[in-house]
Order: sequence, then C-alpha cells, then structure tokens
Amino acid sequence: MSRYPLLDSVAAPQQIHHFSLVQMEQLAQEVRDFIIASVSETGGHFSSNLGTVELTVGLMHHFDFLVDRIVWDVGHQAYPFKILTGRKDRFSTLRKHNGLSGFLKREESPYDHFGAGHASTSISAALGMAKARDLTGQDYACVAVIGDGSMTAGMAFEGLNQAGFLETRKFMVILNDNDMSINPNVGSLQGYLNQMISGQYYNRWRDRIEHAIKTIPVASVSRRLAKAAKWSEESFKRIAVPGLLFEDLGFRYIGPVNGHDVAAVLRALREAKERMAEGPVLLHVQTQKGHGYDPAVKDPLKWHGVTAFDRESGEIIKPAPDPAKPAPPSYTAVFGNTLTELARRDEKIVGITAAMLDGTGLNLFQKAHPARCFDVGIAEQHAVTFAAGLACQGLRPVAAIYSTFLQRGFDQVLHDVCLQNLPVTFAMDRGGIVGADGPTHHGLYDLAYLRCMPNLILMAPKDENELRRMLFTAIYSNRPAALRYPRGNALGVPLEDPVTALPIGKGELLREGRDLLLVAVGTLVASATALAERLAGEGLDCAVINARFIKPLDEQLIGQWARHTRAVVALEEGCAPGGFTGAIAEFLADQGIARPLLRCAVPDHIVHHGDHARLLDEEGLSPRALYDRVKAFAAELRP
Amino acid sequence: MSRYPLLDSVAAPQQIHHFSLVQMEQLAQEVRDFIIASVSETGGHFSSNLGTVELTVGLMHHFDFLVDRIVWDVGHQAYPFKILTGRKDRFSTLRKHNGLSGFLKREESPYDHFGAGHASTSISAALGMAKARDLTGQDYACVAVIGDGSMTAGMAFEGLNQAGFLETRKFMVILNDNDMSINPNVGSLQGYLNQMISGQYYNRWRDRIEHAIKTIPVASVSRRLAKAAKWSEESFKRIAVPGLLFEDLGFRYIGPVNGHDVAAVLRALREAKERMAEGPVLLHVQTQKGHGYDPAVKDPLKWHGVTAFDRESGEIIKPAPDPAKPAPPSYTAVFGNTLTELARRDEKIVGITAAMLDGTGLNLFQKAHPARCFDVGIAEQHAVTFAAGLACQGLRPVAAIYSTFLQRGFDQVLHDVCLQNLPVTFAMDRGGIVGADGPTHHGLYDLAYLRCMPNLILMAPKDENELRRMLFTAIYSNRPAALRYPRGNALGVPLEDPVTALPIGKGELLREGRDLLLVAVGTLVASATALAERLAGEGLDCAVINARFIKPLDEQLIGQWARHTRAVVALEEGCAPGGFTGAIAEFLADQGIARPLLRCAVPDHIVHHGDHARLLDEEGLSPRALYDRVKAFAAELRP
Repeated sequence: MSRYPLLDSVAAPQQIHHFSLVQMEQLAQEVRDFIIASVSETGGHFSSNLGTVELTVGLMHHFDFLVDRIVWDVGHQAYPFKILTGRKDRFSTLRKHNGLSGFLKREESPYDHFGAGHASTSISAALGMAKARDLTGQDYACVAVIGDGSMTAGMAFEGLNQAGFLETRKFMVILNDNDMSINPNVGSLQGYLNQMISGQYYNRWRDRIEHAIKTIPVASVSRRLAKAAKWSEESFKRIAVPGLLFEDLGFRYIGPVNGHDVAAVLRALREAKERMAEGPVLLHVQTQKGHGYDPAVKDPLKWHGVTAFDRESGEIIKPAPDPAKPAPPSYTAVFGNTLTELARRDEKIVGITAAMLDGTGLNLFQKAHPARCFDVGIAEQHAVTFAAGLACQGLRPVAAIYSTFLQRGFDQVLHDVCLQNLPVTFAMDRGGIVGADGPTHHGLYDLAYLRCMPNLILMAPKDENELRRMLFTAIYSNRPAALRYPRGNALGVPLEDPVTALPIGKGELLREGRDLLLVAVGTLVASATALAERLAGEGLDCAVINARFIKPLDEQLIGQWARHTRAVVALEEGCAPGGFTGAIAEFLADQGIARPLLRCAVPDHIVHHGDHARLLDEEGLSPRALYDRVKAFAAELRP
Repeated sequence: MSRYPLLDSVAAPQQIHHFSLVQMEQLAQEVRDFIIASVSETGGHFSSNLGTVELTVGLMHHFDFLVDRIVWDVGHQAYPFKILTGRKDRFSTLRKHNGLSGFLKREESPYDHFGAGHASTSISAALGMAKARDLTGQDYACVAVIGDGSMTAGMAFEGLNQAGFLETRKFMVILNDNDMSINPNVGSLQGYLNQMISGQYYNRWRDRIEHAIKTIPVASVSRRLAKAAKWSEESFKRIAVPGLLFEDLGFRYIGPVNGHDVAAVLRALREAKERMAEGPVLLHVQTQKGHGYDPAVKDPLKWHGVTAFDRESGEIIKPAPDPAKPAPPSYTAVFGNTLTELARRDEKIVGITAAMLDGTGLNLFQKAHPARCFDVGIAEQHAVTFAAGLACQGLRPVAAIYSTFLQRGFDQVLHDVCLQNLPVTFAMDRGGIVGADGPTHHGLYDLAYLRCMPNLILMAPKDENELRRMLFTAIYSNRPAALRYPRGNALGVPLEDPVTALPIGKGELLREGRDLLLVAVGTLVASATALAERLAGEGLDCAVINARFIKPLDEQLIGQWARHTRAVVALEEGCAPGGFTGAIAEFLADQGIARPLLRCAVPDHIVHHGDHARLLDEEGLSPRALYDRVKAFAAELRP
C-alpha cells in the first residue's frame, strides 16, 4: 500500500477543486511527507518547500492553473506545486542532468507560467499577464507568490507601485512571510511585517491614538474620547488596519493568515477571490520554513538547500572523509577567512552582502567584525551604490555577491562605481558553471558584461592562494576591481602568509613552449597546464600563461609568447561572446599578431542544470574535450 | 551695477550660515534670475532647477557641505547648488566641451560628493557615507535629495528599507515632490503623496475612523465615540499622521512643506536637524517645476530640458529652417510613428516606457493606442519583466528604453527575457555618443552587454528606413530582439511603405571591392560608404558591408568578403571591448580567416560631454579620423 494514497490519486490538480477540508488536510500531509522522503534522497531546496504545502493545496482548490496564471517568486518554494502538477513520478530526477529543474521552467510543464531563479520578479511578471488578459478580453486570475525576503528587492516595490496605480483587478500578490530570506531578513519592511504578526502594530496604534487624544486642546472632548477609548480595544483594532502600507499603495490587504491551517488558508483565499473583483489584493500568509520537520524548523538556514540526509536522525549524509587526503577548503571559505584576516589589520575594510552571508562566506567576517559587515537584504542595486558611498568616505568596501546576482547591480557597477573610479571590490563567488541550480544561476556572463566597463580591474584566480592575493590586490588597488571564482572546493594548494599583492595587469608564465601558447584564466589554468604536460609527451610543445587579469590584459607577456609560438589557444569557463577569449581575439587583432586562435569557452547557448563535470564536458571544456579540440586545432596548422 | 549683487558677494556658501531671512529670500530670487538668464543662453535642464532654489539656500544656511555630505539624485536639479558653490562664473560653459557638467561630478568640485545621471541612487550613496561616518567616529550629517519621480525606482525603496532598519542617525532624505518625473508621475506612491498634499489623506482617515466606530458592536461605546468624533476634527488630524508609509519604514516624517517659502523651508530644516539626532528623517518638500518662470510652470515637460530661448517671450530659439532642405525627422519620431502604424494593424502590439514617453517617441503611440501604452515610471527592471509577462500571454511588447537606462534592466533582459526566449522587443534610443549629457548618458555599452545574452537578436540600423524594418523584424521574430539607434536627426532617406521584414542574420553588401572590407553597423555605415568612395579615388578599392545584425552575425557574407579582400576594418559607435568590432575579431578567429583587422570603436575610457561631432572626432570615429586611420592601416599591409 502506498504511503501517499490520496496524492497518488491526484492525476490532475483540478481534482482538488472538489476535495473536502479533511481531504485537503490529508493531501497536505502526504505532500509534506513526500517532499521529506524525496529530498532526503535527492537533496534540493528544502525548508521553503515545507512552508508552502498548505498554501499550494489551497490555491489549487480555488484556482485552475491551466486557465489562471501563477508566478512563484524564485521558484524554490514550488516543489508542492510541481508535485501536484504531474511531476511527482519524476521527482527522483530533481536537479539532475536531464531531470526536473529545481525551479519552475516554462518548457517543463504547462503549469509553469514563468521561470525564475533570481528573486523578486514575480509581481512584475504576473502584472504583465494580468494586463495582457485585460487587453485581450479574457478573465482568468493572476497570482504572484512572493517571500518576504524577495519583497526587500526594489523590483518588487516597482511592481506593487504600478499594480496599485492601475487598480488591476483579478490580480493578487500572496506574501509568503516566513521571516527569512536564506539568511534572516533585514530591512525595516521586515520589522513592519513582524509588528502585524505579533500584534505590536495594534499596540503602536493604541499609543499613537492615546497620545493624540491627550493632546487635543478642547478639554471636554479629549476627556470623553479618552474614556471611550479605554473602554473599547475593539475600536483601535478596526482603526489600525494592518497592512496599511500596502493599502497606501493601492492594495486590499488581507491577513495575516496562518499558512499551515488549511481551513484558514481556504477562507482567506475565498475572501481574496471576492475582493479581487474590485482591485489588487495582497494576501499576507504567515508560514514557517521547514514546517513539519523538526530539524529544519530549528535550523532553517542549514536546511534551506541540502544534500541527501537521513530522515530519522536528520543528519546530512556526507561522504566519509579520507584521512589521508583531507578535502581542500571551499573558495568561499578561503575568501571569508582572508577578508576577516585582512580586516583585522585594516579598520577601513568593510563587507557587504545582499542576503547571502553564509553563501558568500561573509558570515566568517561578520563574526569577527560585526559592526563592519552589512547585509542589505536581497537588494544588489542598493548594495553596490551603498558600497560606492562607503568608498567616497575613504573606506575599502568589499561587496561579496554571486556572479549571477551581480547582474542585478550592472548599472550601479558601471554608473556609480566605474564611471566615478571608486575603490569598491566585487568578490564574485559562483563564477562559471554552477551545476544543479542551472541556467538562472550559472556565472557565465560576468567576464563579458564587466569587461566593457572603464576603469575596472577584472581578475580570476587559478587557485585559492591566488584568490587571496587577488582579494588583497583589489582592496589596495584604489580602483574598482572585481574577482570571480568558482563554486566548490579549491585545489588544496598551500596558502602564503602574509598575503601579498599581485602586480596589476601582469600574468604568469607557467611553462615555456614553441608550438602553441595556451593562455587561460581561473579554473581552466590547471586544465591548460595538465594539457600541456600531456601534449608534451606527444611532441607538442606548449607555452602556458595564467593571464590572471582579464582586464587589463598582460599585453606584453601574452604578445611575446603569441609571437614566439605558432598559434594561440585561449581558455575560460565563461561565455564565448565578449569574455576572456574574446579579449584575446581583440588583442591579437589590435596588435596585428597574426596567429590562429582557438577559443575554448562556453558557446553562445543556454547551459542546462546537472553535474558540473558533465556539463563542462558537454561545453567542450573538460580535460578530455580540451585535449581533442587542441589536438585537432594543432593538426590543421601549417607545419 | 550687477543684477545679482548678493549672489556676487557669496564667495563661499558658508557665508549663508549668517544670512538673515530677508537676505536669503533675496539670494533665492537672484539665483533664480541667474538660472533663467544663463540657461536662456546655454540651454540645459531648466524647470527642475527652478524648483530647488529655496531648498538649496535653506540647506546652505543649515549645513556646511565641505563637512556635511549631500547627494543630489540625478543632479539635474542641482544648478542652484553649483551656482552657490563657486561655479557661477563658469556657468556659461554649461554642458559644453571642457565646460561644466550638467550633472554633479566628483572631479568638478569638492562640494560634489557623488555624481549621477541615472535616477534613484542618492539614498544608497548617502547611506553609505553615513555608515562610513559612524564607523570612523565622525559626526557630519548626510543628506539625500530625491525627486518623487526617482522615488518610483525600486532602488530608492531598497535604500529606505535599509536606512530605516539601521536607525541611521544624522541621515536625512529630502523628498523633492514636484508631482513629475520628466513626464507626469505614475504609480500608487504618487497618489499617496498627492493625498498628503491635498489634505485628502485626512479625509480618508476620517472616513476610516468613522466607519470603524460605526461597526463597533458594543452599542453604548460606539455611540459615545461617534459623537465625540464628530466634535473634533483635530483629533483625526493628529491620529492620521501624514507620511505613515515612511514612518512604517522607520523614518521620522516631516512635511509637507512649501518649498518656495524660504521661512517654511528654514523652519522645517531646523526641525529636521533636531530630529535627525534620533534617527533617519524624511522631509517632504513640495516644489513646483519651473517656479518663477511662467512658461515653464505652464509646460514643465517642454521645459524640462531646453535649448537657448528668449527670456521675455519664452520662445525656444531654433535655427531658421531651410525651405530648400527640410530637416529630416528624428530617429525617435520615426520609431514612434512606425510603432503606431504597426499597432494599427496588429492589436497584439503594446508599448512600454519607463517615464520617458516623450523622449522615446512613445507619446505618439500613446495618443493613438492609449490602452496599449504603459508608462511604468522610473522602473526599468519592472518594465522589462512586465514586458516578459505580457509576452507570455501572446502579446508583442515593445519596451522603448534609452540605451543607457536599459543598463538598469540588465538582469531582467537576461534572466527573464533571454533565458526564457520570450518575444520582447527592446527599442534603445540614444545609442552611441549622446553629446551634452555626457558620461552617464552615452549609450556606448549596449552592444557589448547585450551580445553575451543567449537567444537575443541584436541590430542597429544605418538609417531611419532600416530602423522601421528592424522594428518590424524584431516584433515578428518571435524571439527576444533589440535594436539601437542614435539621438538626433535621421538621414532623410525615403521610407518604404509598407514596411517589410529583414532576413534575420543577413547583412547587406553596399559596395564590392578587392583591397579592404569595411564592415560597419548603425551610424558608421554611412561613414564607411563615404570613406570607400574617397579611398576609391585614391586607388584603394574597398568593399562595404552593412552588417545590420550584431547578433547573429552574417557569417556567410562577412566571411566571403573578408576572404575576398586583404584586410578588414570594423566600425561601430560603441565601446571597443566586447562590442560589434569585438564580434568581428572573434568571428575571424573562430573561422580561421587570417586577415589583419582594424577595429574602429570607442576606446576603453570615459567619454566626456560636449558636441557630438567633436567627441566623435576625439574618439577617432569622425570621417577625418577614420580616413587617417584606414589610410595608415592600409599602408602597413604587405602588398
């Protein structure tokens, strides 16, 4: 007998329209059990998905998402939705090569109306759908589900601001308030939401009204009012409409609602459906990350995204460490530790993150230097310009933002930092192919989109020791500087101490050679060196340069060895158009160095999700693929 | 005798600390007169600057901006500030080559603490300065002055959200509320601000409280309260604190204040200074665009930015039209008219602008198809994803956003549109060098930052007829597509009617030749053709290709003619790293076409403000400069 009898019986979510409350409660329980069982085997986003189970069941009772539209912000809280829309049987393939995406994806299901891996896009997208509906004379409802963390991004405010202004009907924003982004939330909006949930909002209003009454000059009136006021708590509650901030922006506010009480969720959704007829609705649902699985409730941060774990004990399953060969540290940890260490000697160093304290390693820095660490929330635009402001006053800000998320701050990096030549350092983790998170998270574009910015120094380290040196170099360059490094473990090389600066714009000759020049940055430097060794055994003598700087390029060194060899191979784990290998093509052309060039980079297409090594191979950048390509290239050269 | 006796006597703004109210009123009048007189000769931003005169004088009375920090949002309302900080005598050079910038600029004055040409950065930057101050144990005040238009951008909200959360003291945001961005403001925030100014906020609150009281169930209490309530208007006013939205975000709200009443401004600033000791303050100042100059008050849109004008009549001075040679239409107008015309035949076409109805020519479209035109306010991020949502539901959205401002939507173009392969068209006006607005406004980076995006079609027309065809092509490509075109007048070529599609990824051979291949896009196609004619007279036979598509490149055509000639010259009015000429370098390398390549593009440095033709010459892209460069390049080729 199946452990999920009711869930198994749901062939299409439309069946849920006819479910009783008891059935929906059972369905929610089964979905929760299924997620716990399934993610315990595959790994994946976890605690957020346990928070949205009842809400999802409620939504499917009240709406038909083959007709109505729903946009899940980020999408990593949409596992219940995926499970109930025909993807339960493929759930064991989650985040695996050719398997289900960990996010929503338009190609994956007719129920996935909008894909997203970055936060705070849902209101804008759903509003676009609603206006398209109105223009085409249709009548479906449009729903955006957004977390309180995503609400701190300005883009969400931009969407609210227009939706309220347009008085958009049949449009609802569901605020999934779990009091967290990945890290605990920051920002005054969070304080405001908490006030509503805790009842403090009423208290604050009572004080405000009492104060107002006390100061009314007309004595008799004030006394009477004050007396009346004390008699009736109820009156204050009605005056102090919660969610007034949203009402001020033109929304009808409903809530807060306990998101784990199916009956309450259903009632609230029914009310919302009615009120949507008049104009935009904001439904405030209070949920708990990890609800129903105690270890995740206790440590929602650790359980935000997990690898496989033991369901009973709640222990994350890790491969047994090899005592003979300890795992090298992650690049993230090396960054965090180095910044902490440098900051110990220099009070001017400050750290900035956009809701990614742990992900970026800035948690280490925060522990040591709490006053100098700023988590601005999911707000990359603000993070960058805030850093620019700090730099104006003589500090040395280091903004630690994933490569893919710095895309949100593109204009601020260019307009506020680079055009003003301000000394801000950008530490971009997750550069290159990131693996299971897939297309929305790959850090493939950074070298291309940053290379066009004037004044910027742009680097990628070949190993963790070089990461340390590049961080040091960036901080003391007195210029805008960015360094990008990959997800995962570093190489395990010894760390020089004290860390020293690199000469800006100087690469490193790793091997001399007469036939080919291999010039690489970042992760592919090690591959280039290994390749050169292998080719040497086959009689092909390759020089190898670690470029270190994508910008400024070491024109002297690369030019010299390009001229000294017969052809050039450029290698990077980034997009081919405009990236590092593009810079090499431009350089050779500009210098009139007539050498054939093989560019080994990620081709101009979307890279899907899956295992890093396998994706690297598919993109022609694995050791095997590089060997084949370089051999073929060399074979075509005239002798 | 000078017309500005008091203004002339102000050698340093610190003198204003000791001015009397009467003196400050006189000073404000003189500053206003000076701006009117000066801008009537130079042209420049006008109506916003007449709105901030009294505020600026008041700020200089209360603060010392060699110590205290001030960030003016955008900076085109900071002429009074520039005039009072030692730049009055250079004001005739405004926006001219080597003259004063039209914005603030850190290199220009020790009073310019932060430069900006894009909106909504001021709160973030000033907050960074305030935190730097706190960390370094200093005590100066930090002030951001931001317009209500700029407030609609999410970035401003991100800054408010963190400032309130950090309870930042000695930090003030001045909301300069003139009820306009360049176009009239949109968004529910504006409605909220208007309520406060008009007193409707009180009325709304009175209704709310009365309603609440009426519905209180305890009969005796409710009657008593209702009676008391009616007796005292005053009580409601005190309960209904204006600016509650800002108070909810952790700010102390002061206002609204009449920004043209010097005494009121001074009083409000004094109160603000006191309350800043406790935490962040938001001072709401109501100003009038064009205040003190009637024609500008009546039409603030027309007078937002002007060329020289006659002070007495209020007439803009235009060069007398040459009846024999009528001026060609602007690219902007051709875009607006073409979109309007296409939309007449296709109901699915919708237009989106971010507070730039007139600037983008979308005002023409709006007039014809008001329901299908969306002005989302200064909110490029939202604009892009809103368009993506429209596209999901089968519409054909065209987002008309200046090249420089689309930088704000970089992540949304990539993450929401390109990764999902949604058919959104981006019409990027002001591509290339824009002239007087300078570094923050040049559209130099678009081809580079868009070229890395998968699925995107990227075009630049050689003339206005091709603009029409590219717009048509983009809209019906069923893919993400972008076209960029320059500021100013088009070439005056005949317009084909009906407009027809271009084959995607196909360039146009304009001239055959054996010696050099000139391959150009956009504005430089005409230059390339003219250059080829001239060189032909000198015995150098050049083929010319109009590439049309930066992406996908016409590999077949360009490859054929590159092989057919001895060397290639690539030309674009865009940044050299990663742009169109970078694409040509990559293409030649990838195809193994061993031809020398001369890349004519804007070098990797900041281009200053001034006359377009002169800047083009400085960057080596004027006809004269191109001739010299190509001659020298050809001379070095082996025969």
